[in-house]
Amino acid sequence: MGKYGRILAVIFVVSVVAGGLEGAAATNAQSAIRNPQSLVRDYNVQPVPFNQVQVRDGFWTPRLETNRTVTIPYCFEKCEETDRISNFEKAAGLKQGKHEGIYFNDSDVYKVMEGAAYSLQVHPDTMMRLYLNKLIAIMAGAQWDDGYLYTFYSVPHKQPEMRWTNVKDRHEQYCIGHMLEAAVAHYQVTGNKAFLNIATKCANYLCQTFGPGRRTDPPGHQEIEIGLCKLYRATGEGKYLDLAKFLLDQRGRTGNRGPKGDGKLYGEYAQDHIPVIEQTQAVGHSVRAMYMYTGMADVAALTGNMEYIKAIDAIWTDVVGTKLYVTGGIGASGGNEGFSGRYELPNLTAYCETCASFANIFWNQRMFLMHGDAKYIDILERTLYNAALSGISMQGDRFFYPNPLESTGGNERSPWFGCACCPSNVARFIPSVPGYAYARKGDDLYVNLFLGGEAEIRTISNKVTLKQQTEYPWQGDVKITVEPEKSGTFAIHVRIPGWARREPMPSDLYKFANDMAQPPSAVNSESVSLKVNGQPITPDIEKGFARIERQWQKGDTIELSLPMPARRIVARAEVKADRGRVALQRGPIVFCFEGLDNDGNVARLVIPDNTEIKAEHRPDLLNGVTVLTGKAQVAKRTTEGGIVAAGTRSFTAIPYYAWAHRDRTAMTVWAARELQAARPEPAQ
Amino acid sequence: MGKYGRILAVIFVVSVVAGGLEGAAATNAQSAIRNPQSLVRDYNVQPVPFNQVQVRDGFWTPRLETNRTVTIPYCFEKCEETDRISNFEKAAGLKQGKHEGIYFNDSDVYKVMEGAAYSLQVHPDTMMRLYLNKLIAIMAGAQWDDGYLYTFYSVPHKQPEMRWTNVKDRHEQYCIGHMLEAAVAHYQVTGNKAFLNIATKCANYLCQTFGPGRRTDPPGHQEIEIGLCKLYRATGEGKYLDLAKFLLDQRGRTGNRGPKGDGKLYGEYAQDHIPVIEQTQAVGHSVRAMYMYTGMADVAALTGNMEYIKAIDAIWTDVVGTKLYVTGGIGASGGNEGFSGRYELPNLTAYCETCASFANIFWNQRMFLMHGDAKYIDILERTLYNAALSGISMQGDRFFYPNPLESTGGNERSPWFGCACCPSNVARFIPSVPGYAYARKGDDLYVNLFLGGEAEIRTISNKVTLKQQTEYPWQGDVKITVEPEKSGTFAIHVRIPGWARREPMPSDLYKFANDMAQPPSAVNSESVSLKVNGQPITPDIEKGFARIERQWQKGDTIELSLPMPARRIVARAEVKADRGRVALQRGPIVFCFEGLDNDGNVARLVIPDNTEIKAEHRPDLLNGVTVLTGKAQVAKRTTEGGIVAAGTRSFTAIPYYAWAHRDRTAMTVWAARELQAARPEPAQ
Repeated sequence: MGKYGRILAVIFVVSVVAGGLEGAAATNAQSAIRNPQSLVRDYNVQPVPFNQVQVRDGFWTPRLETNRTVTIPYCFEKCEETDRISNFEKAAGLKQGKHEGIYFNDSDVYKVMEGAAYSLQVHPDTMMRLYLNKLIAIMAGAQWDDGYLYTFYSVPHKQPEMRWTNVKDRHEQYCIGHMLEAAVAHYQVTGNKAFLNIATKCANYLCQTFGPGRRTDPPGHQEIEIGLCKLYRATGEGKYLDLAKFLLDQRGRTGNRGPKGDGKLYGEYAQDHIPVIEQTQAVGHSVRAMYMYTGMADVAALTGNMEYIKAIDAIWTDVVGTKLYVTGGIGASGGNEGFSGRYELPNLTAYCETCASFANIFWNQRMFLMHGDAKYIDILERTLYNAALSGISMQGDRFFYPNPLESTGGNERSPWFGCACCPSNVARFIPSVPGYAYARKGDDLYVNLFLGGEAEIRTISNKVTLKQQTEYPWQGDVKITVEPEKSGTFAIHVRIPGWARREPMPSDLYKFANDMAQPPSAVNSESVSLKVNGQPITPDIEKGFARIERQWQKGDTIELSLPMPARRIVARAEVKADRGRVALQRGPIVFCFEGLDNDGNVARLVIPDNTEIKAEHRPDLLNGVTVLTGKAQVAKRTTEGGIVAAGTRSFTAIPYYAWAHRDRTAMTVWAARELQAARPEPAQ
Repeated sequence: MGKYGRILAVIFVVSVVAGGLEGAAATNAQSAIRNPQSLVRDYNVQPVPFNQVQVRDGFWTPRLETNRTVTIPYCFEKCEETDRISNFEKAAGLKQGKHEGIYFNDSDVYKVMEGAAYSLQVHPDTMMRLYLNKLIAIMAGAQWDDGYLYTFYSVPHKQPEMRWTNVKDRHEQYCIGHMLEAAVAHYQVTGNKAFLNIATKCANYLCQTFGPGRRTDPPGHQEIEIGLCKLYRATGEGKYLDLAKFLLDQRGRTGNRGPKGDGKLYGEYAQDHIPVIEQTQAVGHSVRAMYMYTGMADVAALTGNMEYIKAIDAIWTDVVGTKLYVTGGIGASGGNEGFSGRYELPNLTAYCETCASFANIFWNQRMFLMHGDAKYIDILERTLYNAALSGISMQGDRFFYPNPLESTGGNERSPWFGCACCPSNVARFIPSVPGYAYARKGDDLYVNLFLGGEAEIRTISNKVTLKQQTEYPWQGDVKITVEPEKSGTFAIHVRIPGWARREPMPSDLYKFANDMAQPPSAVNSESVSLKVNGQPITPDIEKGFARIERQWQKGDTIELSLPMPARRIVARAEVKADRGRVALQRGPIVFCFEGLDNDGNVARLVIPDNTEIKAEHRPDLLNGVTVLTGKAQVAKRTTEGGIVAAGTRSFTAIPYYAWAHRDRTAMTVWAARELQAARPEPAQ
């Protein structure tokens, strides 16, 4: 146990002590499968790990299955083809040759391994398990005697003099962080310690190398902090948590030195411009930023550090209020793979890296676990169904790296990338999705996401099975059957999504502009209803959750009805790119217009505020999607350069995540709402 | 090209030159997927490789699927658990530690890899393919710089002084032989040369070590000869064939010396008592013997060596006439894991090793390819459906090593064995089964086995698809649809099984004693019929085949009807163990009596010659089997020690291969036919 395990620090949320003392605890869906140690402190709210959630869902089951049968094997194969794995074989002395590919390529192998471990938890696959064993054996051979493991400095021969000579750019700790995450997952799923032993040996070496009185320079790319927190949870070794906090605290401080370090700051790009506890705005490379905020949340939960929480609360407000796309994507700029200024949210050049979306979900889940507020799940859900899912093809073997909100028609998902962070993140992210659905706190339960299936949840004094039946995200009816092992009084917090409460976002960055032209039926039904055992109830809404506290019996039911009218979204005026424009949303799904469905030209479409928008489910289209249709004006440029309406045509909008699956075609999320915002072709 | 590729030697079967010149040729089902070289000489008849045969068959499809999804992954897992694979990892320097298990354990890993390669050919499985890649990478690391690869002398460190110090017992070449087979299969299936490169490097080293003027002592356990012939076919390198023949020719010659060799003969156990061309009887360890005869057949086919052919023809006559169980099993004795004397075929102690059955099939296929005679397929089929299939549970993860023909009730298939040759042979044998079904010679085709599905067969001047529809082995009707790419005159040889011609065996070791008590309907219908396009035909029977030569058009059909009465088999009087006893056969299936179906006691059953025997298909029993039922006498021992009939009871016989699937129960293939042959319990 390190010092954080022993100190009773400031209680930062009401029941942290009770929450922490209740036993084994975990950060997110992926951990907490088996915890060998009861930690003294962790998140107040505990997730229900994905492996305790059985998914039987029209939307998610096919995606989980595709990830298992296509994406994971495919990514391993690509890691083989691109020599990512042969770098380890060379480092292990199995073959000769130079290092191939980018210096941080080790990380991709670890990430796919992490995904494979999750997949094994819910679906045994002997060949996948044995393949992991072989990779681990090779990695054991590639590890140096002192614990160091990084192929770039190991091939064609060990170069000890090169280690840590460029922690700003060479990503040694980034790779090791992913190794720690993968090793913890592998151990928790299989009970086999082979990978965990490699990880602890490497982490021990890190602890000897970095820390007070040793090397003090922080890594250029955050990630090790998350890995160290997971390793701390898995082993109970406090020094790993100590090192995670140390490396965070070193950011933004001049004078850090390694053998060749110059003590200069790395700057905003790497969130190293000021100390982390002084940061209030999201800046720089968005994946680094998100991994840092996630790591800060973990360290805060595990230590009770209020300064961290204050900082990431402020940053969250900044992101959600000024830097978040309507799809949940973040990172407007390709130049720095990261954040631009406030309200700078261009659509055609939107970067919205797939990894950043996943990282945004990691972070928001932790923010929820810390604060118990549904607003974080609102962001998580928006990102999940839109910006994140867009990154992976329905077939499971094509990937987007950036996910722009507008295209002139050249976009196509790629089989792989030289920098393959996104595909490997897909492999590990998808199987973890069921882990975001539920949470618990003491004896109380949270229903965060709506997906069919059931979860078995052990609370302090009971074991409760929750069964969901739903056609979400296409229909808003959710039936939850409650089956406590023994009857008891506890609260079930059912999330009432922000979009159902007419708040697209827990900020004023976007708003629904919806009451303009809904069909009467939609307007009339547009109120959330809840029933328990068939009887309407009107529970208090606390932090975005309907809190239903009663004595629960086996077979009790909760029926949630979330009306799903098609809704218009408009951005606040400061977002120049969206001025005069409208986006469509229904339930959690944000829509887009593809040229294929709209006469080849989406830039000239104008969706007037008074146009009726209809929803129609098309089971045969794009594996089954609900589309939105209506009448648009067609803008035309006059010979004088003005824009006029040249008639009307039907429009069809499809879910944004499903774009670019049929052809290379123009696409936009934001359509013109006014003639002057349209961009028709020049007059002939 | 070695010398055998260039020399035009004695023509040993009528059309060997034509057959040989026609191009790429293969020994058995597993090879010949892609042949980089056209060899000058090979078998006269060419097999149709298993990967050109699509199986859609009620009997075989589930077995192929179980092998792919259960047996192969299971065997790899066992190879991991038992350190067979970690021996390679240690040899490759990935981990420390001593060699675990038996010195020849490498061979099991290679054999499962060979099976996995075959499986990949017909059913892509990315994780299995990638797992093979990792094993191969580790094996490359375990291979010595000079090409040697054998973990027993490589762990915990290389022991060059120990190599080849005991070629009689240490099975280095046996292991390498299996490696060559696996590597050729992997290359032919994947096109990836990684494993083939290891194999050729190792084989080149072998060629430098053994041969005229070098080491001259033959290996104690044959197998390398088969592997070298396959490698010769895959690469066209004649030196591999030269070495195979050299090692065969060195057997039975005194004065062979290695560094510690004493020049003595290994004796009959290892078929090293006299030179191979002088051998006329099957002796010693049955797997060694069968692998040797198989290797001799390959070398004879590839070189035209008539002396080899004469020897194995004589040995075959000896086996089939005096040493073959009615199940097709060979190797009566557990003491030497091999052959006993002529007619020594005890049932309770019958060894009938599963590997020996597979090897018997390997050998008989080659004898067929050499001579074009269906009598070899008769033996192959008998062994396949009875002694061989008995070795593997229907669930695919339990195995028999010996397959006795009688049990007092203690037999149960095992999860694994210290010496795991049988499970690993199952893994590679099962996927090759479809490769035994068809063959071709010039423009003519052979239909050897009856299983549903289709084969696409390229002949010299045509491409012909044969489609089979059949419920074999439960029903004897077989419909073959002929679809030549272009109409043409050629012969289709349809095998008329010996059992359908009232010859259970191409020898007088067993005979049908059947005309005694068949139901009239069975007797009346007991003649084979053939139709082409619905019209009865009476083609010549040549070497056991109905030879149907005509101009074949697309859509022509052949209908073969093989009556399947239940038949009694009796052994010739010299077989003491079967005196006064009878076995039951229907179609190719040999039956047995299990206590479970027969009041717990099969030793007291007496099946009189005049009892009517009925066949009944039971879809729900043992994955669907036809059983035989009738009335048996129950023998009872008198207090004076005599045996009397104490009434009758119904008996049920199940297919022998399906025994020991429900409970540990007494079993016998040979039931008493006369009271005095019964063995009732002593009188109480």
